[in-house]
Amino acid sequence: MNAITLMTDFGVGSPYVAEMKGVILSIAPGSTIVDITHDIHAQDVAQGALTWRQVCHAFPKQTIHIGVVDPGVGTHRGILLVKSGDHYFIGPDNGLLSFAFSSAEDIWLLDQSEFWRSTVSNTFHGRDIMAPVAAHLFNGVPPTQLGTKSKPAVCWDPPTPTLRSSCIEGEIIYVDSFGNLITNLFTDELPVAAWTVEFRGQAVPVRDTYANGNEGSLLALFGSGGWLELAISNGNAEKTLQAKIGETVSILLSS
Amino acid sequence: MNAITLMTDFGVGSPYVAEMKGVILSIAPGSTIVDITHDIHAQDVAQGALTWRQVCHAFPKQTIHIGVVDPGVGTHRGILLVKSGDHYFIGPDNGLLSFAFSSAEDIWLLDQSEFWRSTVSNTFHGRDIMAPVAAHLFNGVPPTQLGTKSKPAVCWDPPTPTLRSSCIEGEIIYVDSFGNLITNLFTDELPVAAWTVEFRGQAVPVRDTYANGNEGSLLALFGSGGWLELAISNGNAEKTLQAKIGETVSILLSS
Amino acid sequence: MNAITLMTDFGVGSPYVAEMKGVILSIAPGSTIVDITHDIHAQDVAQGALTWRQVCHAFPKQTIHIGVVDPGVGTHRGILLVKSGDHYFIGPDNGLLSFAFSSAEDIWLLDQSEFWRSTVSNTFHGRDIMAPVAAHLFNGVPPTQLGTKSKPAVCWDPPTPTLRSSCIEGEIIYVDSFGNLITNLFTDELPVAAWTVEFRGQAVPVRDTYANGNEGSLLALFGSGGWLELAISNGNAEKTLQAKIGETVSILLSS
Repeated sequence: MNAITLMTDFGVGSPYVAEMKGVILSIAPGSTIVDITHDIHAQDVAQGALTWRQVCHAFPKQTIHIGVVDPGVGTHRGILLVKSGDHYFIGPDNGLLSFAFSSAEDIWLLDQSEFWRSTVSNTFHGRDIMAPVAAHLFNGVPPTQLGTKSKPAVCWDPPTPTLRSSCIEGEIIYVDSFGNLITNLFTDELPVAAWTVEFRGQAVPVRDTYANGNEGSLLALFGSGGWLELAISNGNAEKTLQAKIGETVSILLSS
Repeated sequence: MNAITLMTDFGVGSPYVAEMKGVILSIAPGSTIVDITHDIHAQDVAQGALTWRQVCHAFPKQTIHIGVVDPGVGTHRGILLVKSGDHYFIGPDNGLLSFAFSSAEDIWLLDQSEFWRSTVSNTFHGRDIMAPVAAHLFNGVPPTQLGTKSKPAVCWDPPTPTLRSSCIEGEIIYVDSFGNLITNLFTDELPVAAWTVEFRGQAVPVRDTYANGNEGSLLALFGSGGWLELAISNGNAEKTLQAKIGETVSILLSS
Repeated sequence: MNAITLMTDFGVGSPYVAEMKGVILSIAPGSTIVDITHDIHAQDVAQGALTWRQVCHAFPKQTIHIGVVDPGVGTHRGILLVKSGDHYFIGPDNGLLSFAFSSAEDIWLLDQSEFWRSTVSNTFHGRDIMAPVAAHLFNGVPPTQLGTKSKPAVCWDPPTPTLRSSCIEGEIIYVDSFGNLITNLFTDELPVAAWTVEFRGQAVPVRDTYANGNEGSLLALFGSGGWLELAISNGNAEKTLQAKIGETVSILLSS
């Protein structure tokens, strides 16, 4: 195995993250541990799922991704291990794994407590179940020993763009740390014909780079993940426009 | 040695932390360095001591923990190395090491400048003394060469709960990143008899998990560290209640 | 090579940083990656350059430093690799590398796309060009294969103190995470004669350590980087004084 990554909603600087790392290093000394982010909004499963979709493709095969966005911790929701495209994902069965599922080859319910901490709290399964299981997987314990073949109970789908005769109606689904507004409109889904972008009834010029707009004015471009986003050159679109997740962004199709 | 951890009040994102890591890697290349947190409130020695108590038990033996919460940097306060339960702790002698001391086998005053940086500033002993000493310890230099046997000058005790005839009166001593209010009431210290929790004159229902409360209402539970805490299901108790460290939380004993 | 460091303006907790780490680990598995900071103010090239100057000297030789403060991403600005004192620096040619240049032995323009990601976006050269080039350099690919000998197009100089007959007039150029106000007045540049510090027309007492001032009052001292700074003992000078970058700080020379 190559590395273990961590994504949580614990907050940047939370010492709870360090507890998970201590558990991992106790079982798999010297393993490479990478923080994806701990800044997921508290209990925002959708944001966690979208962040995983954006980031994980950049990691090498044989990477184990742990995600702890888990409002149901301590209830009967299961914890799943998903193998997908030679990556492994561990997280609660609450929709966080939605994009991993789309190409999932194998899914296991983690139910083998011999690979957990000796005492399991009701409030911190990231430390007591997910971290030790990831470390054992890193050490070479096969998924078949860590759990039982399963299916996910919960799946979360991002809102699908609506295809109309003259436009594709999408929406803002994510705001990045620069205040860029990322939509659910994907580069591969666009018709080849000429098109323009509209937001709040105004045309938005489409550019190749952030720097190619007029300073302070709104532009649209396909970001590094392949999604259409709205940005302000040298500025913060979210703050300037008071934009919100869920607002409509349309692609007008020229005939 | 397994790993070196860092806890400071430098602030998340402070480049001063990176300077310490650079010094460590210069002496002990390839060593595993883990951030505990850098979000300790500026100069809050008590919060640092409590964070160490919460987190360090999760790390493997032969881990070296550096703590820099050091309002007296550059004065005559000593810097100590404590060996406790096969963990090593390095920090200023100002109370930060209070919980490490409780089971300390050995304590050394770091006074051997040959293991420090060649130039020692008056303002950054974390980089100039603690980081290089930790790296040499990681490399196998024994504590007896790094310092002289000593006793701590300063010890900080958390407020002790008051045992009354009909209740145990504790208080909030720590707020975590979710806004949960952690008290000084420990699970092992509770009488076996029936009991209830009271905060601001109101009974607080006791639950097993965060999710088992009514959305938005206050609940009490024993957190992952064994301490009684007050939380709001899917909410932030600190912000909602404007709660402060030092406020009383009582356990009412039934007869 | 020893380690790869990352400095960006992506914001603490940004998942974009993790994408860069994933790319590096895909090419150079097991490499040591250290965060300098991701808290550079958005597009503040000067702050990035000053942070590098403060921090990098603490790292061992054969460290590769990546800096992504890059408002011109996707335009024709080049990306440079600088070898300086057995450290390597990779960043956009926009002034970020100004202090690396001062002692640069060799500079290359990164123009060999065989060492980049197969698809290069217009918006994220940190991930698509800088990270993979750093990883190949870590693996031993020589700079001469990664780029073409070049000269920097842009250099940023910090404001120079003004030497007058009776004083040296400097200014605040940086504020650290404690709110200490760091100036462009360097310890080595001071005349030997007696001197005092003045800020907003008031004398500021000079101390050896932060703790040697009166609680809550302003003091001046030479910080761990060798620069004169203004600080408040157990306080935050920036917030208390509403101080700004660019404000004058003077050293009055006694005759």
